[in-house]
Amino acid sequence: MTIALLTRPGDEVVVQDPSFPVYESVIRFAGGRPVFVRLREENEFRLRIEDVEDVIKGLHRVRGLIINTPHNPTGSILGKEDIEEIIRFAKRRNMFIVSDEIYEDFVYEGKHYSFLQDPDWRDYIVYISGFSKTWSMTGLRIGYVIAREEIIKKLEVFATNVYSCPPAPFQLAAIKALELGTKWFERYLDEYRRRRDAAYEELSKVPGVRVIKGRGAFYLFPNVKEVARAVGARDVDELAKRVLFEAGIVFLPGTAFPLRGGEGYFRVSYALPVERIREGIKRFRDWVKDKVGL
Amino acid sequence: MTIALLTRPGDEVVVQDPSFPVYESVIRFAGGRPVFVRLREENEFRLRIEDVEDVIKGLHRVRGLIINTPHNPTGSILGKEDIEEIIRFAKRRNMFIVSDEIYEDFVYEGKHYSFLQDPDWRDYIVYISGFSKTWSMTGLRIGYVIAREEIIKKLEVFATNVYSCPPAPFQLAAIKALELGTKWFERYLDEYRRRRDAAYEELSKVPGVRVIKGRGAFYLFPNVKEVARAVGARDVDELAKRVLFEAGIVFLPGTAFPLRGGEGYFRVSYALPVERIREGIKRFRDWVKDKVGL
Repeated sequence: MTIALLTRPGDEVVVQDPSFPVYESVIRFAGGRPVFVRLREENEFRLRIEDVEDVIKGLHRVRGLIINTPHNPTGSILGKEDIEEIIRFAKRRNMFIVSDEIYEDFVYEGKHYSFLQDPDWRDYIVYISGFSKTWSMTGLRIGYVIAREEIIKKLEVFATNVYSCPPAPFQLAAIKALELGTKWFERYLDEYRRRRDAAYEELSKVPGVRVIKGRGAFYLFPNVKEVARAVGARDVDELAKRVLFEAGIVFLPGTAFPLRGGEGYFRVSYALPVERIREGIKRFRDWVKDKVGL
Repeated sequence: MTIALLTRPGDEVVVQDPSFPVYESVIRFAGGRPVFVRLREENEFRLRIEDVEDVIKGLHRVRGLIINTPHNPTGSILGKEDIEEIIRFAKRRNMFIVSDEIYEDFVYEGKHYSFLQDPDWRDYIVYISGFSKTWSMTGLRIGYVIAREEIIKKLEVFATNVYSCPPAPFQLAAIKALELGTKWFERYLDEYRRRRDAAYEELSKVPGVRVIKGRGAFYLFPNVKEVARAVGARDVDELAKRVLFEAGIVFLPGTAFPLRGGEGYFRVSYALPVERIREGIKRFRDWVKDKVGL
């Protein structure tokens, strides 16, 4: 709703590629044009302002920037300096930023920096989060937005026309969740770190796979181009299907996010117990070894 | 989502006035133009095809018709012949019909006729209902659509981009509700009929109020023009506010639905126990009597 509200027909809005696919589809739905900025493996999939400046060169209706940190699907996080640079850039160009920080509690090295730390955030930031990640209230479909009053009032009108309101019982559950704070989450974060480490370790052992040790969210984004080539898969979609049907393991092909930036990558979710992560990736490894005759 | 999906920019879509206000706002959001057809007290607020033909005369992009029977806010219902006439009309003009039948179990005289009874419904009908009325699962925010496969597939894509899915626990609750059937509802319908009768009886006793005995939904739509005039209220919005703050009774002004058709009317909801209905309308009556010095 935020993106649909802020994007006017003809607006150009910068979106990271890869990224959560709904950003792109909503920009198009609102009549805007997504402008993709590639997140590169050699930069650990962190957004670089130089790359944004490159893609918007010559464009005259660039109005917004959709950020997501920690990042789905790559597991990258933006540091303090990255964020300060993005803030300066957005202010200079008079752009809004939609900052989707729903994975904010899932940071394994360093800490999370929020765009709300800018004292001027009301001028241009809409912060998005929800109860699906930290609280695992995924199936309850409840999230929240922080923005200046004017935007909230418009979102209220929008929400009334879309779904009236989130389900009443889950609004109460969300309030209860907020009252608990997030201190209890610390040991879950440790567990997620162990999962991340296990997934990283196992993926590193798969022949032809190269993987960055992502610092946030619960995803790794291994480069599987060599595997695809070695097993004769046309692309990662075909590779993901073969691994699914032949080895019984689900990896999302990077091209689901939503375009070119994910070509050659898998998204590996490690939101499950360590032993299942190891078992799954081992099965993938065995499948690869078998195919290439190792 | 259905209206947003079916309305293309520039399309004209016929909407009853008064009607649930979201129909209008979604047509406009999708770039269409609502064409209002007045429901008249002298026809017991039932849609007449002659009135539709009148308002679309000279228009060339009339593409759809939003129907709601039993009707919010007037409590009117369409009979078998009404529906057959609307069906013939829509087919002749090649229009889609979105038929919102969410109050289908709330019919006190006669029976509910659905647009799905047309064997050709797949060609042009989208039927809308939900669990908020019969099952009182209002706060759970779950509804459903019946349409041909092609439309359902597009609605799935739309839903994925809007809210992923309805909350999982309430999908299970909805399945359970469907398994129960609606036999149990009979005694609730009798209770609602008693409420309707009580509301009608009490409203008939209020000086200056004229009221049609609606046959469906749980609303009556009394004409309060004389009351407004007698107490010096500029319009029903002002009248509703005064009754709220001075007598402590909430009536929705007819102008909330969403335009001219409700001018001079109140929507009275009778979804509460008989004694509270009587008490509330009596307070309204006492307030009127007091104001006009009866």
